[in-house]
Amino acid sequence: MSQQDDAEAAPGPATRVRLEIAYDGTDFSGWAIQPELRTVQGVLQKALAQIYSSFVEPPTLVVAGRTDAGVHATGQVAHLDLRQEQLDRVGPDTLARRLNGILGTASDVVVRSSEPAPEGFDARFAAVWRRYEYRLADAQTPRDPLQRHRTVWYTGALDAEQMDNAAGTLLGLHDFASFCKPRDGATTIRTLQEFSWRRGDDGVLVAAIKADAFCHSMVRALVGACVAVGEGRLDVDTLVDLRDALERTSAFKVMPAKGLSLMEVGYPVADELAGRALQTRARRESGR
Amino acid sequence: MSQQDDAEAAPGPATRVRLEIAYDGTDFSGWAIQPELRTVQGVLQKALAQIYSSFVEPPTLVVAGRTDAGVHATGQVAHLDLRQEQLDRVGPDTLARRLNGILGTASDVVVRSSEPAPEGFDARFAAVWRRYEYRLADAQTPRDPLQRHRTVWYTGALDAEQMDNAAGTLLGLHDFASFCKPRDGATTIRTLQEFSWRRGDDGVLVAAIKADAFCHSMVRALVGACVAVGEGRLDVDTLVDLRDALERTSAFKVMPAKGLSLMEVGYPVADELAGRALQTRARRESGR
Repeated sequence: MSQQDDAEAAPGPATRVRLEIAYDGTDFSGWAIQPELRTVQGVLQKALAQIYSSFVEPPTLVVAGRTDAGVHATGQVAHLDLRQEQLDRVGPDTLARRLNGILGTASDVVVRSSEPAPEGFDARFAAVWRRYEYRLADAQTPRDPLQRHRTVWYTGALDAEQMDNAAGTLLGLHDFASFCKPRDGATTIRTLQEFSWRRGDDGVLVAAIKADAFCHSMVRALVGACVAVGEGRLDVDTLVDLRDALERTSAFKVMPAKGLSLMEVGYPVADELAGRALQTRARRESGR
Repeated sequence: MSQQDDAEAAPGPATRVRLEIAYDGTDFSGWAIQPELRTVQGVLQKALAQIYSSFVEPPTLVVAGRTDAGVHATGQVAHLDLRQEQLDRVGPDTLARRLNGILGTASDVVVRSSEPAPEGFDARFAAVWRRYEYRLADAQTPRDPLQRHRTVWYTGALDAEQMDNAAGTLLGLHDFASFCKPRDGATTIRTLQEFSWRRGDDGVLVAAIKADAFCHSMVRALVGACVAVGEGRLDVDTLVDLRDALERTSAFKVMPAKGLSLMEVGYPVADELAGRALQTRARRESGR
């Protein structure tokens, strides 16, 4: 069958492919494709269009976490659907290698793996949690210029123990409206499953932050609240009051994007996947 | 006293200042100052000239390890000598902060500390050892684009255990002529005090390499020899023969600079410093 015939054939049933993706967010205007701007999705879709050229519709990517400009990822997850005639050209077993071949060895985005997605898998709607890390260097941290693109440098001294205490008070199911940029119809009720601070061997303060999902700017506002506590400008009781006020505040800042990395996305075991996706989609669409 | 008076005053006795320096070597043509090229020494001396402007002679830097283009450092050491009138303007306690202020927060070179050097200290001639790290990702390593500037990506699979065995056979006092770019009058006899390979938690193969000193290209040739063993092209016995042949060989490559970082430089305790510097200088000058 010639490529022309492929393009004219009636579309067959689609096979879903799961991709794991890592990127240095420094030179990207975030994940989501935008005209005129260099974005992670834009770069990957261009490479996909090159692999699946001659097909009327090149595959599009659906992602677990649409990261902002400057945010990095080591464990981003996305899916795409391939029809049989596209699978015949490049299937899940070789897609990652082909994409990386186009992107080149010095690329700031790498496809770590491609594999057939399990039945019912949806990178966005089946995800049950997202885990982020935030890296912050303070006066105590020996500065490492090799890590400057993913580490925010804070001039003063920060109290890591107080920051960890502050993080602890925010755990659990809450309305996080005080930490979210409002968006019409989007819920701000989330379950913060993990939030802790520790100082690594390299002296860098690292926050581990895990939730079912995050609203816009939430991770960086949570980090900003802990920084305000760590520098002694805010006490933990006041932080709890600010959280319960359900209003954005100037008592802490939304921290810079470059300290933030999406580390991992969690999905249910295979036989619960389809149910989860349906449930999430229904909830998101009802605005809850 | 005006700055003009400073410049005209007779030079007083010098006070030696010890600097610890970290840099991302990616955008530098190495350490040593060169006309037209951006080098670490060049950038630092320009900042020093700005701090000590109006003095006839701005201070110059003497460094422990003159790293090649693309090589990084987290623990580079240098010294400079300041006369009293220069000390009066900016002394060792504030010099690091002033230099970093000029370099800016996004700088790819950072002065980690500045302090008065102990009696007899010489960054180059008093150093008793240099420790480097080399980072290598193979087919088993999840690729992290955030670490691409300091990690060499090798396509195939490498046997870390065989590489560690190979490194072990090179330890000790040897003539390393097979691993050195020849330079007139420079000895190639060195004591390799530490050379080992381990796979880190992030899957990256990391070599720790420590010697009294290294001749030109030696670290990257030692790494190349282990890579040849790790990919099964060279066996350990042959490597020992190649070492003892005292001739450069095509059996292994000099590996790329970007995987290499100078981690730490060792100096004797204070009361042995002056003796060590005299001894090294005498040996280097005699070509031994």
